Amino acid sequence: MVIHELTDDQCRDVLARTNLGRLGCARAEQPYIVPVFFYFDPEERSIYGFSTFGQKIDWMRSNPKVCLEVDEIINQFNWITVVVLGEYEEIGQSAGERDARRRIDELLRHRPDWWLPATGKLTAGAEHHVPIVYRIRIERMSGRQASEPIGHSSPD
Amino acid sequence: MVIHELTDDQCRDVLARTNLGRLGCARAEQPYIVPVFFYFDPEERSIYGFSTFGQKIDWMRSNPKVCLEVDEIINQFNWITVVVLGEYEEIGQSAGERDARRRIDELLRHRPDWWLPATGKLTAGAEHHVPIVYRIRIERMSGRQASEPIGHSSPD
Repeated sequence: MVIHELTDDQCRDVLARTNLGRLGCARAEQPYIVPVFFYFDPEERSIYGFSTFGQKIDWMRSNPKVCLEVDEIINQFNWITVVVLGEYEEIGQSAGERDARRRIDELLRHRPDWWLPATGKLTAGAEHHVPIVYRIRIERMSGRQASEPIGHSSPD
Repeated sequence: MVIHELTDDQCRDVLARTNLGRLGCARAEQPYIVPVFFYFDPEERSIYGFSTFGQKIDWMRSNPKVCLEVDEIINQFNWITVVVLGEYEEIGQSAGERDARRRIDELLRHRPDWWLPATGKLTAGAEHHVPIVYRIRIERMSGRQASEPIGHSSPD
C-alpha cells in the first residue's frame, strides 16, 4: 500500500463530487462527530449545510473550530480522505446576511432534493422547528490517497 | 422522516457489524477526524485499533478524550448513526499489559485479514515503522435512526 498526499486541487475535486461528510466539533477538549450532508462552494472556499438545533449546533456556537472529513473507501488498501479545518458561522435573516443567503439559494437552485431533509425534519419534529443554515469557512485542507502497487491484487 | 434513539443493545449491534468508523480527537479546541478500521469488544466495552504514528496519535496522547462515529447511510431519509465517547489508551509491551495484548490476539485470531493494513503501512513507509495498538474505553454511547414513514417513497 502506497500513501500519498493530495494537492489542493485534488482535495477540491473530492469535496465537489460528494455531499456526505462527517462534521466534528469540540467542547472542553471532548470531540463529537455527526454525519452531515453539505454543499461545497469552491468560489467562496466554504461548506454550506443545514441543521435543526441540537448538541452539534450548541457546541459549534460555543466553539466555532470545526473539522469536516470526507472519504471514499473501497477497502483498507484503497481509499481517499480529505480533512477540512475551518470556522463555523450561522447565516441569519439580517440585511447584512442577504448576500450569503442569496449565494446559498443560487447554489441550491439546481439541487431541489438536497433541501428536503431539513423540511422532513421540520414536519416530523415539533420541537425542532427552526432550520439553521450554516457556513464553514475553510482555513486548511489536506488529503491522502492510499492505493495498492500495480500488479498487487486486493485480498478481499 | 422519523428519527428515534437507539437502545444500548442496538448501538452495540451497529458497532459489532462494522469495522469502519471515523475517529475524532481534539487539541486546543480544534477537532480532527480520520477514518479508521476498528474492532469492537462487547465484553470489555472497548474499541481496538492499530495505527502508525501521525497527527492523530500525537493529539490523542496529549488529550485522550476521543469520539468514534459509525454510520450506515442509505440516503438522507434512511440512516443510522452511533456515537461513542471514550478514552484513548495505548497498549504497550510491558508485563502489565500482557493481558490486554492477549485479549487483542484472541479477538483478531479469526480475522487475519484485518491486521494487514498495519503491515502494509509497515513495509511501505520506512519512517513509520512502529505499529501502535490502542484501545478506546467506551464511556458513553448513543445512536439515532432515521426512517421514512410506511407508504412514503424515497425521492431518489
